[in-house]
Amino acid sequence: MKVAKFGGSSVANAAQIKKVANIIKGDAQRKFIVVSAPGKRFSEDVKLTDILIDLSDAKPNSETYESCLAAIHERFYEIVTSLGLEKNLLDELLKTLANLLESNTDHRNDCIKAFGEDSSAKVVSSYLRRIGLNAHYLNPKDAGIIVTDESGDAQILPESFSNLYRLRDLEGIYVIPGFFGYTADGKLTTFSRGGSDITGSIVAAGVQASLYENFTDVNSVYTVNPAIVSNPKEIKQLTYREMRELSYAGFSVFHDEALMPAFNAKIPVAIKNTNNPDKEGTMIVAEKPTKQNGVVGIASDTGFSSIYISKYLMNRELGFGRKLLEILEKAHISFEHIPSGIDDLTVIVRDHQLSQKKEKHIIEQIEQSLHPDTVKVHHDLAIIMVVGEGMMNMVGVAQKATSALAEADVNIVMINQGSSEVSMMFGVEARDMHKAIKSLYQKYFG
Amino acid sequence: MKVAKFGGSSVANAAQIKKVANIIKGDAQRKFIVVSAPGKRFSEDVKLTDILIDLSDAKPNSETYESCLAAIHERFYEIVTSLGLEKNLLDELLKTLANLLESNTDHRNDCIKAFGEDSSAKVVSSYLRRIGLNAHYLNPKDAGIIVTDESGDAQILPESFSNLYRLRDLEGIYVIPGFFGYTADGKLTTFSRGGSDITGSIVAAGVQASLYENFTDVNSVYTVNPAIVSNPKEIKQLTYREMRELSYAGFSVFHDEALMPAFNAKIPVAIKNTNNPDKEGTMIVAEKPTKQNGVVGIASDTGFSSIYISKYLMNRELGFGRKLLEILEKAHISFEHIPSGIDDLTVIVRDHQLSQKKEKHIIEQIEQSLHPDTVKVHHDLAIIMVVGEGMMNMVGVAQKATSALAEADVNIVMINQGSSEVSMMFGVEARDMHKAIKSLYQKYFG
Repeated sequence: MKVAKFGGSSVANAAQIKKVANIIKGDAQRKFIVVSAPGKRFSEDVKLTDILIDLSDAKPNSETYESCLAAIHERFYEIVTSLGLEKNLLDELLKTLANLLESNTDHRNDCIKAFGEDSSAKVVSSYLRRIGLNAHYLNPKDAGIIVTDESGDAQILPESFSNLYRLRDLEGIYVIPGFFGYTADGKLTTFSRGGSDITGSIVAAGVQASLYENFTDVNSVYTVNPAIVSNPKEIKQLTYREMRELSYAGFSVFHDEALMPAFNAKIPVAIKNTNNPDKEGTMIVAEKPTKQNGVVGIASDTGFSSIYISKYLMNRELGFGRKLLEILEKAHISFEHIPSGIDDLTVIVRDHQLSQKKEKHIIEQIEQSLHPDTVKVHHDLAIIMVVGEGMMNMVGVAQKATSALAEADVNIVMINQGSSEVSMMFGVEARDMHKAIKSLYQKYFG
Repeated sequence: MKVAKFGGSSVANAAQIKKVANIIKGDAQRKFIVVSAPGKRFSEDVKLTDILIDLSDAKPNSETYESCLAAIHERFYEIVTSLGLEKNLLDELLKTLANLLESNTDHRNDCIKAFGEDSSAKVVSSYLRRIGLNAHYLNPKDAGIIVTDESGDAQILPESFSNLYRLRDLEGIYVIPGFFGYTADGKLTTFSRGGSDITGSIVAAGVQASLYENFTDVNSVYTVNPAIVSNPKEIKQLTYREMRELSYAGFSVFHDEALMPAFNAKIPVAIKNTNNPDKEGTMIVAEKPTKQNGVVGIASDTGFSSIYISKYLMNRELGFGRKLLEILEKAHISFEHIPSGIDDLTVIVRDHQLSQKKEKHIIEQIEQSLHPDTVKVHHDLAIIMVVGEGMMNMVGVAQKATSALAEADVNIVMINQGSSEVSMMFGVEARDMHKAIKSLYQKYFG
């Protein structure tokens, strides 16, 4: 039994939904289907969820309100009519939305935001029935997806998994809207953005699927960001750990934490393309044969800063590092890495955590309580992760990477290796990132 | 004006002291001379200071006591007679020792330990006079070397430097015993072991010497440990920072912290060989021309352990690192380095800090308060430092090092680069250290 999740672009319009239906029809194992809200039909298009967010905040009868409503109406009109579904369905959807807009509960905005996924599931299940499948819409409440009462950041509660497990015995195909669950007292509550992946992963774990298929609009996970290297090689197989390390530094196929429920239940995950479903895609598995060890991908991300602190005999001063981390913690800054010399320490943080005001405050705190010889901040760093199982025990892995960077005339600002068994991390100036990645790609995959 | 310090092997016997005298005579600038206690004359010999320590602990008239006394008598007998000095001097030295042994002050042991240096200074100054120089013994109290009241770890007090500065105007040559100073209320107090280097450096800083010459029994500082690579290249010039980084990982020419007073006063330091004084030696300077930038030396040391901790989403957990360092701090363990992955951290510590009992305690603490997914300790690591000014901004430095390690079939357990501007640090298995060093040496200096 498989769980298939279809992202926003897969249900963006009637033509896409027909592809989805064909995929579902093509494999009798595809029993639980999770859908996103209609996404972008073209690159300048607006996702339905963004329209819903604007709508929920707009004053009734205001210009924004009316234009949002019109846009929603237009999209579902196209979908329902082009799929040849009954007009009743469109009326029902719009009636539901109208009721939500008029309601005044504390979870009103969650309900409006979730309208896109919920409607998608109704449309897709209707269309599946229309083409002769025994398909049903399944509300997350009826599916037993119970979450904490945190709007926009709901956390799954453990009983959900046993609730979901009971669904295995049902006859037919069930289409579940992604992105939301219900609190124990029945209030609709949304996950964080991109939450349809969370639902898919939870359902896969709950029903103990043999495979969780995540359908997107790319053929696979790529060895490197296609925006930097054109037509990069595809990754056939990845381990969970590799996926996680790649995701850290900007691999944005999906939110890696969303996959955790599936990972924890050891469900293999397939990344596939709705527009090209015969393509093999990428399999994400718990373990792979050691003979496949080696560098599997290169990820990169900008937006890092470093705080450099030097003080003679620092490493004799018991508590120095702890006090430093305490200053950062009080300012609510979590550190990424701490390369260190004999008499110096550098803390790498994400730029977005370091407003000008916070930076000034932290420097003052460091000066006052640690009395360093020097403290300075360096912005505009990029982090590059070279990822692969077994790297830790391979002779020459570092050599290959450092050669690639030297050949590209890139100065290495930082190397961090020695904790993760599956990755090696380099810091470079942000302006050097593209040429660094290109050269690393050539070295490992060229 | 120069300050010259002679180590234990330089004053180990009469023949060596004659060399010292010739060196002093050879340059009229050598005005302040600091001497160690007589050291080893051959590799199985015992340093006089070790005999004195045994003596100070021994019961009067015990076998140890008598044999120590006899050994001391024998050494000074050889020195005094072979140098053709008057027998009065020998009697005076032995009388002084006898008085110290009988005394009962709280600094008795410091006084006995310092007897070696004190006697050396008396002998050397007498011999210099005998060969026609205007030389004087100068007691540290008269020189104005004022220290804190911490036996075996005295710290210099700032007034010492201005006291010493006044000595510049004296006529003649002054021989000062190393290793000890006096508290403000006049108690003799010793520095940490190897403290003659501390005295030399303090005197050089105090009198504002144009050069501080540190005479040992090696021709220079070497680019790599001669016990690992035979006949390694000599280092002609080093910066203070390079020296410090090299010292950290086992470069044992001298205790780098001892040089700090000279470094702070920006006095250049020359490392020279008493047995080969015409050799240029190694100059340690504050700055050197950037055209001389590049790798200057490779140091290495064993005796490190790593504590590996992994926990999913660790880097989201504000305070995780701080709590970990707090646990180590409470156990009085100072960390050396903290390489980190996304979901893991490794703390590198010196083995000697991690007794089995402490290790067990720390693991328990980490498990109880941080709830990690994994925690494990890895022993027998070696640290290798590749050191050189300007490394930070050189493309290809990491490549050269990692290539050398790959060619030697050495797996890199850790790379730490990015904080120090003058070094790059590698962790390898202790068993791989020698082949790693040999290969790095070939690459940079072969």
